[in-house]
Amino acid sequence: MTKQDSSQQEGKPDVSQGHLEVIPLGGMGEIGKNMFAYRYGDEIMVVDGGLAFPDSLQPGVDLIVPRIDYLLQNAGLIKGWILTHGHEDHIGGLPYILPRLPRVPVYGARLTLGLVREKLSEYGVKEADIDLRETAVNATVRIGKHFVVEFFRMTHSIPDNLGYILHTPVGQVIHTGDFKLDAHPTDGQPSDLHRIEAAGDSGVLLLISDSTNAERPGTTTSEAEVAQNLEALIASCRGRVFVSTFASQVHRLQNIVRIAERQGRRVIMEGRSMLKYAQIASELGYMEFQNPLITTDEIGDLQDSQILYLCTGSQGQPMSVLSRLALGMHAKIALKRGDSVVLSSNPIPGNEEAVNTIVNKLYEIGVDVFYPPAYKIHASGHGSQEELLTVLRLARPKFFLPWHGEPRHQINHARIAQTIPQPPRRTLVAKNGDVVRLTPDEFKVTGTVPAGAMYVDGLGVGDVGDDIMLERIGMSQEGVMVVTALLHPTPHVDIVSRGFVKPNRELDAQVRKVALDSLEAGLREKKRTEDLRDDMYGAVRRFVRKATGRNPVLIPLLVD
Amino acid sequence: MTKQDSSQQEGKPDVSQGHLEVIPLGGMGEIGKNMFAYRYGDEIMVVDGGLAFPDSLQPGVDLIVPRIDYLLQNAGLIKGWILTHGHEDHIGGLPYILPRLPRVPVYGARLTLGLVREKLSEYGVKEADIDLRETAVNATVRIGKHFVVEFFRMTHSIPDNLGYILHTPVGQVIHTGDFKLDAHPTDGQPSDLHRIEAAGDSGVLLLISDSTNAERPGTTTSEAEVAQNLEALIASCRGRVFVSTFASQVHRLQNIVRIAERQGRRVIMEGRSMLKYAQIASELGYMEFQNPLITTDEIGDLQDSQILYLCTGSQGQPMSVLSRLALGMHAKIALKRGDSVVLSSNPIPGNEEAVNTIVNKLYEIGVDVFYPPAYKIHASGHGSQEELLTVLRLARPKFFLPWHGEPRHQINHARIAQTIPQPPRRTLVAKNGDVVRLTPDEFKVTGTVPAGAMYVDGLGVGDVGDDIMLERIGMSQEGVMVVTALLHPTPHVDIVSRGFVKPNRELDAQVRKVALDSLEAGLREKKRTEDLRDDMYGAVRRFVRKATGRNPVLIPLLVD
Repeated sequence: MTKQDSSQQEGKPDVSQGHLEVIPLGGMGEIGKNMFAYRYGDEIMVVDGGLAFPDSLQPGVDLIVPRIDYLLQNAGLIKGWILTHGHEDHIGGLPYILPRLPRVPVYGARLTLGLVREKLSEYGVKEADIDLRETAVNATVRIGKHFVVEFFRMTHSIPDNLGYILHTPVGQVIHTGDFKLDAHPTDGQPSDLHRIEAAGDSGVLLLISDSTNAERPGTTTSEAEVAQNLEALIASCRGRVFVSTFASQVHRLQNIVRIAERQGRRVIMEGRSMLKYAQIASELGYMEFQNPLITTDEIGDLQDSQILYLCTGSQGQPMSVLSRLALGMHAKIALKRGDSVVLSSNPIPGNEEAVNTIVNKLYEIGVDVFYPPAYKIHASGHGSQEELLTVLRLARPKFFLPWHGEPRHQINHARIAQTIPQPPRRTLVAKNGDVVRLTPDEFKVTGTVPAGAMYVDGLGVGDVGDDIMLERIGMSQEGVMVVTALLHPTPHVDIVSRGFVKPNRELDAQVRKVALDSLEAGLREKKRTEDLRDDMYGAVRRFVRKATGRNPVLIPLLVD
Repeated sequence: MTKQDSSQQEGKPDVSQGHLEVIPLGGMGEIGKNMFAYRYGDEIMVVDGGLAFPDSLQPGVDLIVPRIDYLLQNAGLIKGWILTHGHEDHIGGLPYILPRLPRVPVYGARLTLGLVREKLSEYGVKEADIDLRETAVNATVRIGKHFVVEFFRMTHSIPDNLGYILHTPVGQVIHTGDFKLDAHPTDGQPSDLHRIEAAGDSGVLLLISDSTNAERPGTTTSEAEVAQNLEALIASCRGRVFVSTFASQVHRLQNIVRIAERQGRRVIMEGRSMLKYAQIASELGYMEFQNPLITTDEIGDLQDSQILYLCTGSQGQPMSVLSRLALGMHAKIALKRGDSVVLSSNPIPGNEEAVNTIVNKLYEIGVDVFYPPAYKIHASGHGSQEELLTVLRLARPKFFLPWHGEPRHQINHARIAQTIPQPPRRTLVAKNGDVVRLTPDEFKVTGTVPAGAMYVDGLGVGDVGDDIMLERIGMSQEGVMVVTALLHPTPHVDIVSRGFVKPNRELDAQVRKVALDSLEAGLREKKRTEDLRDDMYGAVRRFVRKATGRNPVLIPLLVD
């Protein structure tokens, strides 16, 4: 199936001149905002366009999307786009990215495109401006002259999740996409490992594989086992049951709905994002309800034992349903003794503290709280070491690019690859922005393109950067002090602070005096306004540091 | 041994009038800043005085000590103080607390007092002002007329760790202190369980026990097993070895020093706090060195395989040795391929992100990194469920107060207590500040005293509070905008922001116009200055929110 460009149509392909460039724009060396570009000659194909959530060094940022300078600079070369699945870290950046680039075919499976459509409409992107093309999960599509994409199914924590074999003039590339090798998936459709095996038999030049759980031994728990444990747990609950899980975990939602149906509980779903996923999934045939969902207002004379809530907030998100329930701030529902809260989730790294706070609040209310690891009611969507080994053994790639992971995950994945009978000849631990050059004999980083984070904050995209982050962190640590100096008719200084210390007249008076002394000395020497301000800034800064041991962000204002 | 107050000396003790009050001032419903007061009649005895570290909602705070309003208000009643062990969360608050209260006897074991002395001198507290009294680990001390304290040894992650039986007119109270039941402790001195058993035989009115690991099944790993695993791991390293662990883990430090000696490695210790612990521990006989420590400057012609570094930073603390090594910022040491970094620690909740960043940096440098759970080279200092059960079974208390834990730990500990053959008649899940009234028949919360957090920030203690925290968090999320308005001769407005958005002249001009319009309208109506400011504040706030989707902290300044 390997396709060659026109210059190579006759005889043995001559690829001495041609090479493929693999350019990760997100998701390499990190978990989040996944995005790839492949370039061959003057053609570019793009994969996914995800978002990431800010960490503690990015305060106030709503979300993060990949920088796309490279794509903007080479916009005319983009021939097509493919989407592996519908998770936020793969499609969440598209409303910010797609409208800024030329209209090219965007291929994805049914559920994936359903979620993209919803997302685009939410952001006011006209559907006509985006060329979405639904593909079967085992479809083959051609993109430009040089790329042929052969999709195949891989199990993950959302339906319609795809890996693909990319046929290029230099050889076959396999990208697993996100995956686990669940032998008992909820929809009965396991991963298409024979496609990887067949590609392995015909020779895989490069494997790009999911490193998320490269540090976890063994095999990731099956979704079927999670469902069994949830069923037993919920059966043991007498009062109302509140189950919180990831809104996008459509398989899990389906299993919980079935459990409720079998146990005579009506399901109430709370949380905008979960309702959205359930609606799209059921419209497109990925979820079934025997009984329609009801709302809290429709409970009527149902007993507590006949009610199961499915709700958002398993990550401790501040205004989520579970947070509001735990803090007693929900408008319609109050938790009470006898209720059971089931966290069918683990905290994502960075959310531990928020989740812990919620769990403690739930205990304080006196409800029964169930969560991993004491209860095995969650499983990762990513394969563990044995699964990674299976894929490596089947693909037997010449070159290997561990992807979808931080350095610790990539490097442990690279080590796993060295343990198979025919290990890759070369493995690269790449970063976002690396230009990885690939030919039948070559596999190396030959350059970089701009890559990194673009911050979305309020209505703005890209108008806050790392300098603004540093200012925010500085103010959060030490507060801010504004020193306003009026020069005429006689110098006069006012002090206002926020987040510094409790109102302290004595300190304010001392600071005013230090500032005034500095100003008056400068005025006597007839210094320029900028110098007056710099002197005052320095004097106040030194004084405050010595007097309080603190360094507030100082804003000196001179009113001339 | 039970002592009664004078009114009860004759015949059967009449305690109908007398009761003990147990008043947790820190460490109840939280992990950190442990402190207790016991009151009987007009006598108070205090236990410990720890500190806590801030969480993400307390930005810029250096550390947190318990509020001691209750002790200040009843200073004259304090008869004595006891210290259970030398960890920061039990003694770290003393330099802030002891100097503010009357000089009373403070009892503690040798290492504990050695660490307290160092701490007091560091903070400039004169030793003569504090009445430190060294006690044997199995000593009995009388405090005031009503309290007799019988100490006993419990194993923990620091030597000289004590629990105690408190004999009071109403009965015996056992407080385990922090503990695990390590059968193979490094110093060969296991927990004195027979003291708990004997007290149980004679009747325990109240048990106060460590809840930290109440959610962990089984038994906490022995320090001996950790040492074995460290020995095997270090033996497998060929180059330099850097081991990072808690500075206060004196047993662990000793074991690692012995391993280094056996394996022909000289030990270099880096990090001020670790050097301090090692110095005090060795001076007082709790640590031995066959070979003296050397410094990096003294390496001379030692081979890499002859060097073992012990260093601070296992929690990813920003300026710690390990952080500086990982970021390539250490003045004298540069990590290189062939080095091994061993994290003999787990991240404390809240530090996961910082530790993860360091681990990834180490992988990027290319050193070998070893850490739990793949390597069993750390053990908690707190007992798991089986150990908690053992103590409950031996003590057979009438009443139970699960302590040293968040609500989730306290409540799970309470459940464990219900599984023993003679469960406690009543268990209270208390909070800091609760006044728990205890008589032979009564065990209930009868009131509260002020309790909570006092923030230490820079040189100030208690001069930042929760209002300041909210301002800091607000500024860290949205930045700050200062709007300065000069009213005369003609109104004029200036805008300065920090942490908001990149300089944006157009936005600034719009904000100036909004502010000016508001001012001019107000001036025409001859409004008062405060009203002018409030109007301007409201107008700018509404405009900025609509134009940017953000809510910076607004500081309106009117220069009249």
